[in-house]
Order: sequence, then C-alpha cells, then structure tokens
Amino acid sequence: MANQEDNLFKNVISHAKEYGFIFPSSEIYDGLSAVYDYGQNGAELKNNIKEYWWKFMTLLHDNIVGIDSAIFMHPTIWKASGHVDAFNDPMVDNKDSKKRYRADVLVEDAVAKLQDKIDKEVEKAAKRFENFDSAMFISTNARVVEYQKKIDEANERLKSAMNDGDMAAMKQLIEDLEVTCPVSGTRNWTEVRQFNLMFSTEMGSVAEDANKIYLRPETAQGIFVNFLNVQKTGRMKIPFGIAQIGKAFRNEIVARQFIFRMREFEQMEMQFFVKPGEEMKWYEYWKDKRMKWHKTLGLGDNNYRFHDHLNLAHYANAACDIQFNFPMGFKELEGIHSRTDFDLKSHEKFSGKKLQYFDTEANQNYIPYVVETSVGLDRMFLSVLASSYQEEKLEDGSDRVVLRIPASLAPNKVAILPLTKKDGLPEKAMEIMNELKFDLRCFYEEKDAIGKRYRRQDAIGTPYCITIDHQTLQDNTVTIRDRDTMKQERISVDVLRAKLMDACSINNLLRKI
Amino acid sequence: MANQEDNLFKNVISHAKEYGFIFPSSEIYDGLSAVYDYGQNGAELKNNIKEYWWKFMTLLHDNIVGIDSAIFMHPTIWKASGHVDAFNDPMVDNKDSKKRYRADVLVEDAVAKLQDKIDKEVEKAAKRFENFDSAMFISTNARVVEYQKKIDEANERLKSAMNDGDMAAMKQLIEDLEVTCPVSGTRNWTEVRQFNLMFSTEMGSVAEDANKIYLRPETAQGIFVNFLNVQKTGRMKIPFGIAQIGKAFRNEIVARQFIFRMREFEQMEMQFFVKPGEEMKWYEYWKDKRMKWHKTLGLGDNNYRFHDHLNLAHYANAACDIQFNFPMGFKELEGIHSRTDFDLKSHEKFSGKKLQYFDTEANQNYIPYVVETSVGLDRMFLSVLASSYQEEKLEDGSDRVVLRIPASLAPNKVAILPLTKKDGLPEKAMEIMNELKFDLRCFYEEKDAIGKRYRRQDAIGTPYCITIDHQTLQDNTVTIRDRDTMKQERISVDVLRAKLMDACSINNLLRKI
Repeated sequence: MANQEDNLFKNVISHAKEYGFIFPSSEIYDGLSAVYDYGQNGAELKNNIKEYWWKFMTLLHDNIVGIDSAIFMHPTIWKASGHVDAFNDPMVDNKDSKKRYRADVLVEDAVAKLQDKIDKEVEKAAKRFENFDSAMFISTNARVVEYQKKIDEANERLKSAMNDGDMAAMKQLIEDLEVTCPVSGTRNWTEVRQFNLMFSTEMGSVAEDANKIYLRPETAQGIFVNFLNVQKTGRMKIPFGIAQIGKAFRNEIVARQFIFRMREFEQMEMQFFVKPGEEMKWYEYWKDKRMKWHKTLGLGDNNYRFHDHLNLAHYANAACDIQFNFPMGFKELEGIHSRTDFDLKSHEKFSGKKLQYFDTEANQNYIPYVVETSVGLDRMFLSVLASSYQEEKLEDGSDRVVLRIPASLAPNKVAILPLTKKDGLPEKAMEIMNELKFDLRCFYEEKDAIGKRYRRQDAIGTPYCITIDHQTLQDNTVTIRDRDTMKQERISVDVLRAKLMDACSINNLLRKI
Repeated sequence: MANQEDNLFKNVISHAKEYGFIFPSSEIYDGLSAVYDYGQNGAELKNNIKEYWWKFMTLLHDNIVGIDSAIFMHPTIWKASGHVDAFNDPMVDNKDSKKRYRADVLVEDAVAKLQDKIDKEVEKAAKRFENFDSAMFISTNARVVEYQKKIDEANERLKSAMNDGDMAAMKQLIEDLEVTCPVSGTRNWTEVRQFNLMFSTEMGSVAEDANKIYLRPETAQGIFVNFLNVQKTGRMKIPFGIAQIGKAFRNEIVARQFIFRMREFEQMEMQFFVKPGEEMKWYEYWKDKRMKWHKTLGLGDNNYRFHDHLNLAHYANAACDIQFNFPMGFKELEGIHSRTDFDLKSHEKFSGKKLQYFDTEANQNYIPYVVETSVGLDRMFLSVLASSYQEEKLEDGSDRVVLRIPASLAPNKVAILPLTKKDGLPEKAMEIMNELKFDLRCFYEEKDAIGKRYRRQDAIGTPYCITIDHQTLQDNTVTIRDRDTMKQERISVDVLRAKLMDACSINNLLRKI
C-alpha cells in the first residue's frame, strides 16, 4: 500500500515535469533544494486556483476586501508576532558525518523504530498463538512493555523539551535513546541549538541605518499591521475580513515532499475581525464555509476531513486543519484558527499605536478578535494535481494518463484541432479560435494524428477538444470531445462559446457554493 | 510649473493613501523605506492591470505561454547574468555627516548646479540686451564658456569612470568638482566603492551546504533558465514567447518617488525567442504591439513616447523605453530590448548544459536570439492612478476629486446604492447585487446622502453607480450614473448586467487592441 502510494506520488511528480506543470528551480544548475518553478500549465492552474479563492472571498462577501502587502516589513513586526524569539527548530550536527538534523525528527525516528520492534513482536506472537489479543500481549510481554515504556517516556520528554525550549534536555534525550547518525553511524553529536526559520537580509546601504530585515514567514502580519488603514479608508464595519495572496519564506532544515513543503511558498490568507466573545460563532462559520468551498471543486468529498489541533499555538483559543488525502496520506491543506486579539494587542504594545475599533452599535472601543483561514496555495495545487491524475486502461487495450482537473481550473479550456493541415481546415479552426480566445484559454494544434493529439490534451487536463473537419466547412458544426468520458458529439459552432463558458467558467463554479 | 507638478504628485500620493490604494509599508512602525503596500482598492487595480497584460500576452498570442518561477534561484545564475560582478552603484560617504550617497548622483547634481549658473547668466543677459541670442551668448561669454567646459568635461569623465568601473577616477572627479555634502557642508569624503544592489540571504541550515543566495533583481533569468523546459514540454516552435509576472528586489541606495522606484517591486516580462538575424524585425513588431496595448487603455496618446537607449547594456544590440508622462515628467514605463543570445549563451557556459533549439524548418541547431518586453507593474499602476486623478470645479461651485480610471481597470465596477435604508430598498438592492456580483465587483453602501456616496465612488474611480429608489419597486428600473459625465439615466434591471459587462470587462478591452 505504502509502495503503491509512493509510486503514485513519483508518477505525479514526473508527469508534472514532463507536461510543464512543475519544474525543479534552476534545473540546468542542478537545482535549488526545496524550490520549484511553475511551468506553462502549472502557472495557469495556479492562477485559476487563486482566482477561485480571491473571487469567493472578495466578490461573494461584501464585507471582505483584499490587499497586497509587501514581503519586506519592519523587523520589529516579527518581534511582536513572536517569530524572532520562537520560530525555531532544534538542530543538531553529527561531528563525524558533518550532517545536520532536526533534533525532534531524530527523536521521532527513534520512537518509530521502537514502535517497529513492538509491531514485529506482535506479528510474531500473532503467528504463534491462536486467539491472539494484541492489547493483552503488549501490556504483559516484558520486552514489549519495556519498549512501550521507552516510547511513552521519550514522547513525554520530547514534548516538554520542545515546550520549554530546553535544548540541553533535547541533547540528553538523544543520548539516552542512543540515536546514531544515519550517515556515519556514530553517536558523536554536537549540542542541540535553536535554529530560526526566518530568512534575513540587510536593507539599505547607509551603514548606520542598515537594517536586518526578514523575508516574511507568513502573510498574516501584513494584514494585521494594515488593519486600521483598511478599516478606516474602506469604512469597514465589524465583522469584516481582509484577504491576501502572497509569497512567504521559511528556511526549513528538512524540506521535502515536492511542493508540499517548500522554502519559498505561497499562502491565501483571510483574517476576519469580529467582536470579542463572538469568535467561536465565526470560527464555526468559517470552518463550514471553507469546507464547502473545497468540496465544490468536486475532487471527492472523502478526500477532506477536519483535524482539531490538540496543542494550540500561543496565539489561538481554537484551531483546526482541513486535511486532504494527499499521495502521502491525510495532511494539512488549510488552517482555520481563532487567533484571539493576540496579534493586534501585540502590535499595539510594540508599535505604541492604538489598534482599536470603535463599535458604533455597542458604543465602545475594543481590539477585535480574529478568525483566520489560511490555505497553502502550493498544497492546494498539489491536491488538485495528485487527485486528478489517473492512469487508465482503455477498452481497446491501450493506456492513457488523464488529468481530471475540474474544468474551471484546467490550464486550457479547449483544444482546437483541425483534422488535417490542408483544405482550409486550419483557417477555419483559426476563425473559430479567434472568436473564443478572448474568453477561453485555447490550445491550437494541427500536427500529428488526432488520437495522439487527444492523448496529449488528456495529459494536461484540457476538458474539451473540438475537431474541425470537412463537414465543418459545409454545415458549421464541429465535434466536441469530453476529456473524462471520451465521448464525442457534433454541435454547431454557434453554440460552442456558450457551452464552453458554461462548463469552464470559475464564476459558474462560484454560483454552486 | 515644477511646483504645480510637485503639488499634483503630493495630492495623488495622499489620495492614494486616504482611499485605500497605497499605504506606506509597516506604517504603524513608522514605515520601511521605499516599500509600499497595496490597499483594498490598490490590490484590485493592480490585479486588473496584471490580468490585462497576462491575457494580452498569453490569450491573444497562441505562441506565448506564461510561467511562474521562484524568487530564489541558484546563485550561479547571477554570475552568468552579470549581476554579481556588474550590478553595482558607486557609493561614497561623507566622513563628517556619516551620510552615504551615490557618487554618480553627486556628480550629476554638481553638473546641474553649473547648468543653473549658466541659466541665470543667460536670464540676466536677456534682460540687459535687446535681440538677445542665447547660443551666441553661451559661446562667447567667458564665465559661461568656463561653466560649459566644466560641464562637458565632468559628463565625459563620469561616463568613462562608470563604463570602466574606475572608482578612483570617480573620487577624483568629486574632488575636482569641489562637491560638498548637503548635510555637513564639508568635502571630507571616503573612497568611492562599488555597492551591489542585490539583496542576499543564506539558504539551508547545513553549515557546509549553506548557500549565499540572492533575491532576484529581475524576473527575466527565471525565464531563460527554463527556456528548454518550456520549449520541450510545450512543444513550442520558434518564434515563441514566455511571459511572467513576479516580484524583484533591488537594494537602491537612493530610493524615491513613491512607488516609481521601490526596493521591492513587480515586473511583467516577456522574452520572445527568435531566429538569429530576425531579431530586428521582432524588436520593431513588439515596439508597435506594446505601444498599442498601452494606448488602448485611453489614458491619452500624448502621454506616451519612445526613447531610444544611446548607451546599450552589455547584452543588447537595440533597446528603447516606452516613457510615460508621470507627474515628475516623462520616465520609463516599459523597456523593450533586443538581448541577442547573451543570456542563453552565458547560461550554457556557466551551467555546462546545451541550450540550443533545433529548427526543423531550417534543419539546424542554434541558440535563439531574444527580444524582451518588460513593464514595471508598479510604474504602470502609478501611470494609471496619476493620469486618472482630477480635481474638478463643478457647475454648482462645489469641488470633486475623481479618478477617471479606465472602467476595465477600476477596482469596483458598480456601486449599489439604495436611496434610503427602509421601505424594502436595501433588500431590493441586495437582490440586484446578488445577480451581478459573480461577474462584476460591486460596492454596496446604504449610509449617508446619495450625493455624498457618489463623491466617495468618484474618489475611488467606480465607473457606475446605480440607485435603487421607490420607483424600482414598481417597474424594476434603476438610475445609473456615469462617473465621468455625472449624467444619470433610468434603465431596466434586466439590461443592467449586459450593459455593465460590456463597459467594464477586460476581455472587451482586449478586443480593441
């Protein structure tokens, strides 16, 4: 099962490259770790996802507006948000291999190995005994009890070391678990140190004024520091929201899983400002709304689930993820957080500026509470790509790879294919395309056999192919082929635009939410 | 005149802030130099400009595709492009004031002062003599001849010092011109040093692997390094183009003029790959196309002009700007450059990978030549905002500020205004809005007198206001008010959507190019 999933993931990754969705960054220079570029089909799919989110947020909610704040921000902002002091991962080096690891990941791996040992003992025992009861076995078999005790203790110590930021305790735990380096095999470890995940740079050329600034690790703070500017200039009344799409940067020690965890990534965030005490109502409201938004895409309702956070971040009084069934299992796609007044209060303190809202109805000033919805755009992209990818065996015995991307999100809406390169068919095809191209992304191709051309469109997820043949010249009809059913029908060119717009427009999809 | 322009510029800047177009970044922390955020109206205007460009490039040209490459790239790329070695400004500090300056700007300022002296002498003489001939005067008056000689010599020496990167010569020039620091008034200068304009940061946590990387100073290289990936996976045939919109970063020593020169900015770039020898044809083609694209917006044909580059960059064999008549005069809005095969060739050399295209028609391999079109998105934004801004005296003696933003680019397309808050008018207004909002950005407002609400919509450039009044409930008509003429007419709700879509859609604008 795990292998099948691995293979699917590998196939998706290589398909993404082969068909112009995702290229490794700087590939001709042998790449840049955990950074990727969106190719010609990827850029369109990404733009469509953005549009679907942006329009849902800002067109369909007259109390939500969008902004676009800069990546560079005043460095004190990251003091106020807690990122300078607390946005760390614990890091440890093996002195022999010179390899660096996340200390908590090493501990988790060691715990996983202990769990493996238990599983093997259980498996062996199950073969030996009839009526085998694994719970009973685990609680009574001396070796297994020992392993389980170690696991429980390690988890407990890991949690407390992480919470306290106690790096000495972390080092001790690694030593007690006798963790060895996967490369050198030795236990020759350095001290464990905190590693801040923010990228920093120097702004300004005047020595005395030069500022160490950070690339923002999240887009949310750009909304918080503009809260009053937007509220006042936009005459917004609580409850209201501010939406933003933009890049964020995290210097992950271990970045992996393709575009799931990148060092440069993009977020679609909305901060919803509410009256204190009403945040739970809105938290539930947005959980519901956001889930509906996802499911409307039609990637399969079973692919989504909520996952409540048990350990709440320092700023939250309630938080959950919307998880998606990625090739590597259910993982976070979107976070919904009730952030209280933590951020605005903290910016009041650090900036010395009042960030209060005057509620005319209640006739009082207060710092609003905030409910945040935050989607990883690249993860969303991966969710669409991976769940759309299908290898099919056809009736005639041949294979096809098809991306069943929702039509509204597909990079191209329609392929315009003259059956042959002569007899005026290309000219007629161009005439049709020139009518459609203002409203629909068209892909024109006249080379190769029609079956081959269909396959290529399947592979990039084009929902419709229209073929211009000799009959077209006579009665102004074309065949239109459906990507998913591969069925063709003959329709008049006059109704083509309306039919395609109806099936492919993001605005129509929005009407279904 | 200069004062009037200054005032206009100041008014535009304060209007941009007051009405949610542009906020200084991190304003509650007293700002971050030369960085700005786009507010709720700015973000929409900016998105619309992007859409107008992106659709023009990629929808209307079936041989142009778009990509979205990362800001982080392999550091060797900036070696290959010449940025590591040559993307410098000469910098000098005054030892007394500790202020830092661009050495070339100091020289230019000194030259400007000499020019002032000439102008004053000419002015004085013109008052003294009848039939005054300024050319004659300049060439014969001893003092003026001396100034002019100094100017010519300084310009010559500046040019050669910059070309040779000769910082000692630069220092000597500053001394010879007896340049004083505007702050301390002294001539106590440090040596002149080259200052690289790229922002750098460290990627990766593994000490031995840690890379000094740069924030890209231009988006173009992201296209060049992906050239073969796109060409092969997209089966592109020369001539073809790759378009991209994205952030770039330059650590300007002296950043100024609002969003005209920012440290973080956004580019809309297209690289067009052509057969060597055909680049001049395509250079002319794109000059023409790009100018048409600009003028179709309707900001006034006289606001645009071409400006040929006299000093060509190291990579170019022809280059010009499309200049716009900004509040501070005609300045670069877009650059069109024939970049030859410089970039691809250089990446071949530095990466060791072949970047050749096989031309099936000519049956030969070659490195394509490149024609680039590059718009500053923020400058484009400023061009729209500044030229749209108008202070008007109305017939009734009152004033209004109106942004005559092209309807297709306006942040909101229509304001929905129930005349009063009762009698079911808000409900009817909402009903109309719920029909329109999927395709048109609507602004709903029910508070304040209708005249006041019109003024606010004028100030943010909303092309149409519709008013829902008691008659609406009877015959399903509304009044529609035109922002520019302020004329109102009564129309049926049934035709509203079509009328607004027709006037405000970007797709319709594209049809006019």
